[in-house]
Order: sequence, then structure tokens, then C-alpha cells
Amino acid sequence: MNITHIEHVGIAVTSLEEAIPYYENILGLKCFAIEEVADQKVKTAFFQVGQTKVELLEATSEDSAIAKFIANNGGRGGIQHIAFAVADGVANALAEAESKGCRLIDKAPRRGAEGLNIAFLHPKSTCGALTELCEKPNN
Amino acid sequence: MNITHIEHVGIAVTSLEEAIPYYENILGLKCFAIEEVADQKVKTAFFQVGQTKVELLEATSEDSAIAKFIANNGGRGGIQHIAFAVADGVANALAEAESKGCRLIDKAPRRGAEGLNIAFLHPKSTCGALTELCEKPNN
Repeated sequence: MNITHIEHVGIAVTSLEEAIPYYENILGLKCFAIEEVADQKVKTAFFQVGQTKVELLEATSEDSAIAKFIANNGGRGGIQHIAFAVADGVANALAEAESKGCRLIDKAPRRGAEGLNIAFLHPKSTCGALTELCEKPNN
Repeated sequence: MNITHIEHVGIAVTSLEEAIPYYENILGLKCFAIEEVADQKVKTAFFQVGQTKVELLEATSEDSAIAKFIANNGGRGGIQHIAFAVADGVANALAEAESKGCRLIDKAPRRGAEGLNIAFLHPKSTCGALTELCEKPNN
């Protein structure tokens, strides 16, 4: 597949209200968007850092993937996933990965935060790191 | 502090020998360097992805931070840290962070992989995400 850059790094936090001031006041980054993604049961906050975004994720439900990640991490936040931008379409990248024996969480692209087409590879096939592929629609 | 971009994302793996083929064959990235950092008791492998590197980390000792991360993660790899490049010096960034109440792991910059000056902030002050600051020496 043709990965061009890291689109974002997804960081689970217990509270956006606590985390945003750390990213803004200590690191000097600027939150440019807050968005709820009902499908994934998360509220997200975005910061542009060069070519890549930091995406903070707060669970809005106890059965969200973010709530489970935090529970498995001793109740603390942490870096939950890495998202690579692909140039030739998420569907093509998924097909190629699957043909090479990679397990997929998503068999087809779905709509994620910021309106991106996204899909996750299964951590069992990615040496543990939860990995997302994404693209802007109609690229 | 003046963060310009994400210098790298540090991903703990149980075995570079298993992980490098995944990054090369499935994701299509190219490992451009393998380096042992004795000080941190790790062996690292680097991949350039746009402006940012992926740094895979394999423990060379059971008492390394990477071995502990994997043990705490159910024996699996995962995303261990995020490293921001700072424009005005790591020492200045540390002083500013500390003055704003941020706990530090490193009170002063030290030498990391690829000869960078690096320092870690304490996860207790970063909402859980292990956070590194870094710069090329003599910038």
C-alpha cells in the first residue's frame, strides 16, 4: 500500500476538559476542533502538529473501545492508535493487507472523525499497535 | 514551547525480527536504520513516514522500560510514546514545562537514538501519554 504520512495519532484520555489545557498550555498546541463521533462513542479534540494531528479521545459510553483501553491501562489514558494516510484508497489498502494475511477489524471503509474514510487493521496482525488507515473521501 | 512536528512515534514490539516484515511487507514502509541504544536497553528500527518516523523498540533487558511496558500490556506490543520536535531547545522546553507545574522524567536533555537530544515528561503530567521532547544537537 502507498502510505504518504501519519494522518493522526489517537490518544485516549479520561477527560478532554483536563487534557486540552495540558496540550495547549504546556505543549503550546492549539485545539482546532472538538467533535463527537456517535458511531465510535467518543468525543474527540484535534491539534495540528506539522503534517500530523493529535486526536484526543474521551469515551462517551462505558462500552466504547476507548473506555476499554483505559480500563485495561489501569484507569489511565495512553496512546491508543496510529493512523496512516493512504494514497490509493482505503478499500484497496484493505484488500492488499488481507491478501497478505493481515487480519482486519473493518472489512470495508467507514466514516470516521473529520469525515475521513477509515478502517482498522487487527492488532493481532500489527504486532500489537492498533493501526488505522484513512483517506479523505473522493481523493 | 515551540513544537514544530512529531519527530517520531515509539512503538514497543516483542521482536523486531517479526515486526519489521509487517511494516515493510504489509504497510509498504522501508526500514532505514537499526540501532541499539545501550543506555535505554533497547534495539530500535526506524521507518520514515512523511515528516515523522516510526521507531520500533525491542527490549534488550528485562529491566528496560520497553520490557515493563510490554509486561503491563499483557505481553503484547503497543504504542509506547510520542516524541515532539521542539525548535528552541529541549532544555528551554523542559524549564518552561516545569515552571508550569509539569513533572519531568529527565531534568536535563540526554542523548537518544539517532544522536538526538531528548527528554521525557512524566505521564502523570501528560494525561497518561508518555511524551518525549527532542531536537537535533547544535540546532
